[in-house]
Amino acid sequence: MSALPKALQELIDELGKLPGVGPRTAERYAYSLLKRSPDVASSIADSLQTLHENVKYCPVTFALIEVNQDESPLYSDPDRDKAVVAVVEEPLDVIAIEKTGQFKGTYHVLGGTLSPIDGVGPEQIRIAELLERIKKDEVKEVILATNASVEGESTALFVQKQIEADGLTVSRLARGLPVGVDLEYADQITIGRALEGRQLL
Amino acid sequence: MSALPKALQELIDELGKLPGVGPRTAERYAYSLLKRSPDVASSIADSLQTLHENVKYCPVTFALIEVNQDESPLYSDPDRDKAVVAVVEEPLDVIAIEKTGQFKGTYHVLGGTLSPIDGVGPEQIRIAELLERIKKDEVKEVILATNASVEGESTALFVQKQIEADGLTVSRLARGLPVGVDLEYADQITIGRALEGRQLL
Repeated sequence: MSALPKALQELIDELGKLPGVGPRTAERYAYSLLKRSPDVASSIADSLQTLHENVKYCPVTFALIEVNQDESPLYSDPDRDKAVVAVVEEPLDVIAIEKTGQFKGTYHVLGGTLSPIDGVGPEQIRIAELLERIKKDEVKEVILATNASVEGESTALFVQKQIEADGLTVSRLARGLPVGVDLEYADQITIGRALEGRQLL
Repeated sequence: MSALPKALQELIDELGKLPGVGPRTAERYAYSLLKRSPDVASSIADSLQTLHENVKYCPVTFALIEVNQDESPLYSDPDRDKAVVAVVEEPLDVIAIEKTGQFKGTYHVLGGTLSPIDGVGPEQIRIAELLERIKKDEVKEVILATNASVEGESTALFVQKQIEADGLTVSRLARGLPVGVDLEYADQITIGRALEGRQLL
């Protein structure tokens, strides 16, 4: 005899499929939804139902776009410089860079990092598409904006070797101290990178 | 121009309604659902849609039950001792106690704690219903199993004063060291309570 009603237990199991959500967190989510108006649960359900049918990948940049758009507005916008391409791992990384308001180039989403152990080789991430686009759009600079993790770094290195060509500048995001962080709390690798990349004043 | 498709942004906003979920966590949940099969999102949506119509409160114990049940099976079960009642704050607390497998009495869910600042007085939590049940079921022991928080303690104190009567034992869960915890890592209030409640060997 289970102590919880089936519908609630089912929802707990379903919410447990979200990344990083264990049984206790799922219980808390489910019970908070039960206590609130059915409209809240219902509007979350509606968003879930329509998610996949209303979102697709841009065929040029592989960012996420509306299903009725041909290309990402961040690419088709004539104000954006198509000769500068920021290469990121995942679509949400585009948002992170956009929020700075400092980047006026375009994006290319790899869709992951190289990870031989998980069966992700160069064919599984969009390197061929990047090469093609560099030719087609006469790209002058590629900014490798992968994560500052081991996977991100090694993927950036691999991509760099693949795209190397005369007249193409390849850069990557600076490593260093995050703004607002005290030196004493920064880890030694970050401080090492900040030393290596020190800027002349 | 938003950098995210509307359907994805909507889902992020909706998931942000879950307790303790900020915009970044909601983004992570939404994107992980987008990357997986639409079936996953769809089955979560189904559970959300049917939640409220399939769950109700037991009219006796106020635990959560199936919509087609008359009473909580933890109450109607003839093996459970109706003369012993554990008083808990929320329906999920019932599960926490049931998991011990050590309790053979019945439950009463208050539905919250006293909190004058939030407008929750004695009428808003189910104290009258508890008094009624103590009479009707000839209850011999009430175990106050509220949380070990300030709100839980003061609610327990209030309930205790309300139900005091000849022949009724009122107890509360022991305070002390959680099993598996080193003394040096326990906080001073917990150690103080463990000293007060020390057990003779």
